[in-house]
Amino acid sequence: MAYRFANRIKELKTSPLRENASKNMELKDVISFAYGFPPVEAFPMETLQKISQKLYTEVDPETFLQYGASEGYPLLRKLVKERLATTANLQNEEQVLITSGSTQAMDIAVKVLCNEGDVVLCEEQTFSGAVNAIKGYGAIPIPIPMNVAEESVDLEALEELLRFDQRIKFIYLIPTFQNPLGTSIPLEKRQAIYSLAQKYDVLIFEDDPYGDLLYYGEPIMKLKEMDTDGRVMYAGSFSKILAPSARLGFIMAPDEIMEKLALAKQVSDSHTNFYWQVMLAEFMQNHQFEEHVSELKLYYKGKFEAMIAGLEALPEDKIQFIKPTGGYFICCKMADELDPETFYTALDEAKVAVIPGNVMSVAQEGYEHYFRLNFTKPTLSEIVDGVKVIGEALKQATPASYKQVI
Amino acid sequence: MAYRFANRIKELKTSPLRENASKNMELKDVISFAYGFPPVEAFPMETLQKISQKLYTEVDPETFLQYGASEGYPLLRKLVKERLATTANLQNEEQVLITSGSTQAMDIAVKVLCNEGDVVLCEEQTFSGAVNAIKGYGAIPIPIPMNVAEESVDLEALEELLRFDQRIKFIYLIPTFQNPLGTSIPLEKRQAIYSLAQKYDVLIFEDDPYGDLLYYGEPIMKLKEMDTDGRVMYAGSFSKILAPSARLGFIMAPDEIMEKLALAKQVSDSHTNFYWQVMLAEFMQNHQFEEHVSELKLYYKGKFEAMIAGLEALPEDKIQFIKPTGGYFICCKMADELDPETFYTALDEAKVAVIPGNVMSVAQEGYEHYFRLNFTKPTLSEIVDGVKVIGEALKQATPASYKQVI
Repeated sequence: MAYRFANRIKELKTSPLRENASKNMELKDVISFAYGFPPVEAFPMETLQKISQKLYTEVDPETFLQYGASEGYPLLRKLVKERLATTANLQNEEQVLITSGSTQAMDIAVKVLCNEGDVVLCEEQTFSGAVNAIKGYGAIPIPIPMNVAEESVDLEALEELLRFDQRIKFIYLIPTFQNPLGTSIPLEKRQAIYSLAQKYDVLIFEDDPYGDLLYYGEPIMKLKEMDTDGRVMYAGSFSKILAPSARLGFIMAPDEIMEKLALAKQVSDSHTNFYWQVMLAEFMQNHQFEEHVSELKLYYKGKFEAMIAGLEALPEDKIQFIKPTGGYFICCKMADELDPETFYTALDEAKVAVIPGNVMSVAQEGYEHYFRLNFTKPTLSEIVDGVKVIGEALKQATPASYKQVI
Repeated sequence: MAYRFANRIKELKTSPLRENASKNMELKDVISFAYGFPPVEAFPMETLQKISQKLYTEVDPETFLQYGASEGYPLLRKLVKERLATTANLQNEEQVLITSGSTQAMDIAVKVLCNEGDVVLCEEQTFSGAVNAIKGYGAIPIPIPMNVAEESVDLEALEELLRFDQRIKFIYLIPTFQNPLGTSIPLEKRQAIYSLAQKYDVLIFEDDPYGDLLYYGEPIMKLKEMDTDGRVMYAGSFSKILAPSARLGFIMAPDEIMEKLALAKQVSDSHTNFYWQVMLAEFMQNHQFEEHVSELKLYYKGKFEAMIAGLEALPEDKIQFIKPTGGYFICCKMADELDPETFYTALDEAKVAVIPGNVMSVAQEGYEHYFRLNFTKPTLSEIVDGVKVIGEALKQATPASYKQVI
């Protein structure tokens, strides 16, 4: 029979990222810089085993096997709040709600805020899941032109959009260790963005799944830390510092929004699984969770430096990148003269996987010279070998005419 | 600041069930027949502990801690399919997708099928979560008048609705051990409903979270078993036979719908947590899962019979009910002459919790004489004592004038 689907779902396509993932997962001996995955050795197996054993033998099963509150496990909510007060300077009166990953936090935020036809502004290059979340409610993602060199959205362009588009409900940003760029919006730009949000009275969704993974320097103040008005929704995730499959994220928001988010969460899936909520609470309370995060940071920093060293050895006139101070990704740009198609074909043939820039851009075009590299999942030797392959592919992508000229 | 919320969310109110739940959960020494919860002793702790231990010591963590496919764990999907082929006679070629409870199955079904203003027909008394899922996408739940004595929707009323309302996208039904009625639509009525769906070319969502819990007689053929056209989406749940907090449900649907559901699932929360997917797969493969379900059925049957015995001892002229053949609930109707407000107040004072019919009806009114009783969660002695309290409350709710007349 012929099915008639909702309009909102027609706009969505399976994330190209996911299609790539399925394709690549079938291949053996691929070096993958594609996924934003943790490596298997990042999982704190012994601690998890110990806590799980404790749950099944010492903890009341009503706590972790029964239905529970849509907002989440009260102890975990308290611990997350306390952690944010320590790691960031988030000492406000707002609550957090536990979501199934920060992906779900964005999904329910769009659900409670956007009518069909409303607009959410996004960084031009951004997380495709967030773009899908927006389209999934019939809202419209509009890209904010970026100033990549300044590690920020273009503030004038942002103001232009805010001034003329009355449909804008909120601005979606990944200010810290951006996906796919890896960069972080500097403090003064964050302040300017917050001021613009005030001036044009729109909300901000600050997505911060990588924020804990700082390798150099001091953390930059979060937008949420500047939030005197209650206009920032702040989402975090434990996918990168505990385990993705635990599906644990959270959102902090002003009470009035929180009330609606809890309702949307309840309608969506009743609540996030409590086994993992209790596991994490126990981890945070009694098993040196912060030490685990520190160890992860050291480990990832080593891989990060290996990738940076490899990339720095490549010819500057063929590839450029901004060195992030943390996170999961490094974003590279091949020289304008290079042919992206030849480049990606060469990588495919050499079985090195990266994410082409268009996949991670709102318009799905215009970023073919950019590509995203993940350094957390591959091994050190894969990083060394894979980056060399990238160098070879850059050579192959250099047009003959260009080669002759230089 | 003043927030402007999406229209769709304004229609939603916190489920009164949930409000009651929070209120009652604070009270000690309440006898609760209110929640659709399993009792703590229903959780197979030893088996879960054993399997969990195995996961952390013998299984590749990539299987249960890493990101995974939105459709779910391939082995679990296969096992669920095989189980449906055995427990029901579902031997079709369709796939299942693992959801976070069957609640999420309904949520994503509405998302992919309903534009704002589209209609979903529901049994007049039904699961409030499903009604919220419909409203949550700006679609409209319209109640189908029921013939409670015949344990079915009123077929003529259903046809009337189908004939005149072009906005109808699908019919939402809980045909087996209905929530809140406990009753099951007889075979010939199911066939008639399916024929009407064919005649007016609409889809059916068959929600079956209680279907495994048959205490008497033979299972009735599912609507999905009759589905020659690919017009039935079938959702099941492991909340009632494993553990609610595992958040494991599934949906079976024709390929073309499944493709959209997988997309909606991905956008919503990437995937359901894999720890529980692998736990359940291992349970089903190597730990006598069906014996566990059989034990549950025996255990619940004992509680069911205790409640039925108690209810049968109450005066027939004050209370009536239809005896279900399985599931979680018995629905009672007090005599029309009785005053519901007095009845519910008397129960509150005696600390016995039930769910008033209006809470579980689409229109939120017209069912004040009905109330739902759960028999799985309370102990046997709570069942005996609580039903006596109901008898007392019925007496108090009998108007003086009525008492004098009879």
